[in-house]
Amino acid sequence: MHIAITGAAGFLGQRLVKQLLARGELRQHPITRLTLIDQVEAPQPEAGNIAVTSMAMDITQPGALDSVFEQRPEVIYHLAAVVSSAAEADFDLGLRVNFDATRALLEACRKRELSDTRLIMASSVAAYGGDLPEVLDDMTALHPQNSYGAQKAMSELLVNDYSRRGLVDGLVLRLPTIVIRPGRPNAAASSFASSILREPLNGEEAICPVPVELPMFVMSPGKVVDALVHGAEVPGEALGAFRAFMLPGITITVAEMLEALRDAAGEKAFSLVRHEPDPQIESIVASWPARFNTAKATRLGFVGDENFKQIIDAFVTERA
Amino acid sequence: MHIAITGAAGFLGQRLVKQLLARGELRQHPITRLTLIDQVEAPQPEAGNIAVTSMAMDITQPGALDSVFEQRPEVIYHLAAVVSSAAEADFDLGLRVNFDATRALLEACRKRELSDTRLIMASSVAAYGGDLPEVLDDMTALHPQNSYGAQKAMSELLVNDYSRRGLVDGLVLRLPTIVIRPGRPNAAASSFASSILREPLNGEEAICPVPVELPMFVMSPGKVVDALVHGAEVPGEALGAFRAFMLPGITITVAEMLEALRDAAGEKAFSLVRHEPDPQIESIVASWPARFNTAKATRLGFVGDENFKQIIDAFVTERA
Ligand SMILES: NC(=O)c1ccc[n+]([C@@H]2O[C@H](COP(=O)([O-])OP(=O)(O)OC[C@H]3O[C@@H](n4cnc5c(N)ncnc54)[C@H](O)[C@@H]3O)[C@@H](O)[C@H]2O)c1
Ligand SMILES: NC(=O)c1ccc[n+]([C@@H]2O[C@H](COP(=O)([O-])OP(=O)(O)OC[C@H]3O[C@@H](n4cnc5c(N)ncnc54)[C@H](O)[C@@H]3O)[C@@H](O)[C@H]2O)c1
Repeated sequence: MHIAITGAAGFLGQRLVKQLLARGELRQHPITRLTLIDQVEAPQPEAGNIAVTSMAMDITQPGALDSVFEQRPEVIYHLAAVVSSAAEADFDLGLRVNFDATRALLEACRKRELSDTRLIMASSVAAYGGDLPEVLDDMTALHPQNSYGAQKAMSELLVNDYSRRGLVDGLVLRLPTIVIRPGRPNAAASSFASSILREPLNGEEAICPVPVELPMFVMSPGKVVDALVHGAEVPGEALGAFRAFMLPGITITVAEMLEALRDAAGEKAFSLVRHEPDPQIESIVASWPARFNTAKATRLGFVGDENFKQIIDAFVTERA
Repeated sequence: MHIAITGAAGFLGQRLVKQLLARGELRQHPITRLTLIDQVEAPQPEAGNIAVTSMAMDITQPGALDSVFEQRPEVIYHLAAVVSSAAEADFDLGLRVNFDATRALLEACRKRELSDTRLIMASSVAAYGGDLPEVLDDMTALHPQNSYGAQKAMSELLVNDYSRRGLVDGLVLRLPTIVIRPGRPNAAASSFASSILREPLNGEEAICPVPVELPMFVMSPGKVVDALVHGAEVPGEALGAFRAFMLPGITITVAEMLEALRDAAGEKAFSLVRHEPDPQIESIVASWPARFNTAKATRLGFVGDENFKQIIDAFVTERA
């Protein structure tokens, strides 16, 4: 079993690599080769019998992936992306990485007749937008209000059409907001959602820029990586007429997240969160849908977090 | 007012040209120039004061449209397309014409800073598919089950995103199945829907390849061209968060169409229709939805046919 991963040096890529190596098998076949692709060189962990190759390349360059495809990977994780604010700031870069590179991957599979290769792409809640219903479901239209979301939505259509034509065996998972991300706050509008938990759990202050009534749709990094693994194992026939759908996040208000923080780490941690409204962040985050009926993902066996306590506990355990 | 039309030698293109020349104005400005673009040379009608130029070119060739964009058209109708069966048969050609050429048009507008240029693209009911609800509305997801529909859906997202970014003033009209097309059958899977009326009205035999219970969502060529004209006049601010939507067709079964044929032209005409099931055509057409709540189009002032009799009468009058 040869697995190739684009964006392997990224947050999810690195975690996925770790988990695949720990499992040692995928689709009931031992993993023999992992090809890690990223524009920055992905760390190459100890891997016993598994041949791990890290390739630093820009996947938007023509022919960049030829040598990978010669090896006929049986599973491809396509995680390389230019994320939302960067794709909004540089429209051409976003189109090239988020859309054209996906198309090039699909074409490479077609050219090499890798029709049984499972291609798993990560899409986003940011692909939704516009006048949304209270609860979204698998038939809610994608009316993205940012270029990142538009590029993801276009890629979804392409993955679906290549799969429908039998040129590849594709699958697109739309990810909820990931909480709790380790590390430092970043420029993402959703950064606070990790900050208000991570920093107090580390005994540090954090700022909450949104009203605590705000609901969000979240999933822990651990469950997202589990879903990526499961995405390789779901039979193609089960995927139905459209191969992109939302993963089962949990809907939770900021107040409920903070309550869970108090339960897990006490009053002191809870009081480290200062409330300083930032209307700009609020207006962005409030436009993201927070309630989903993820029937398709659930039917296909994708599993979310059970409750928010579990998300906090997993973070604390991992950090220890 | 300079108007450019791609696909101007096509069925809708030619009718649109005729109607624009008859009106002489658009958006309350006299039309001064019409540029007709098609891979086959579009007929150049008598046009009085209006400068009509017909350019035979393949719009997928790089730089093909440079000379048109130098003239800074204020309205662009993008009608050039490879229709459903042809796009299914030749995947690359479909992608190139239905998607890449749309992207090239948008890029050309961006490069020339034609941010006020109204770009009107024709999309299709074929962009819908999958496990659809009984009645579709403006928030129903596009899960196309054919490459033509996928390419149209991708183009919609791109037109919307370029418009959202203020790079062009775009608009996409999803057309119902057009009935009755004059002339001969074409490569569209829906070609039969015109054939089974047109041929008998002309005293000729026709073949119905689908079960008569099949419901369709249809609009007459006259109303479609009216909608294209109206599409140039709707203010951009009124278009809301997503600039693609379905036009107000009417829902009718094949049996009801044939009944209307019998009412209009008698038993003899009715009996000229032979029923020869074609599973390939049926599988494509049956995946197209037939019931829509077209609230957005109606709110924006788009008007459909009143009933099917009107559609037949219009065809007969026109032919005379
Ligand atoms: N909630 C959400 O919507 C959500 C959340 C997280 C991730 N995602 C998606 O999941 C995927 C992984 O996310 P992540 O959090 O690990 O992001 P990340 O930014 O940490 O990783 C992305 C990686 O892609 C690489 N990359 C970018 N352009 C490249 C190019 N041209 N060639 C090669 N590599 C390139 C980057 O170097 C980076 O390592 C992305 O597709 C992202 O869009 C969505
Ligand atoms: N019900 C529907 O979904 C529906 C119905 C009709 C039309 N449409 C859409 O409306 C538009 C017009 O349809 P029509 O019925 O007039 O189609 P048509 O086939 O009569 O016209 C399309 C024209 O595009 C031209 N063309 C194709 N490739 C070209 C290229 N590479 N360069 C230049 N010209 C090229 C063709 O020569 C043709 O004249 C199309 O975009 C079509 O997809 C949708």
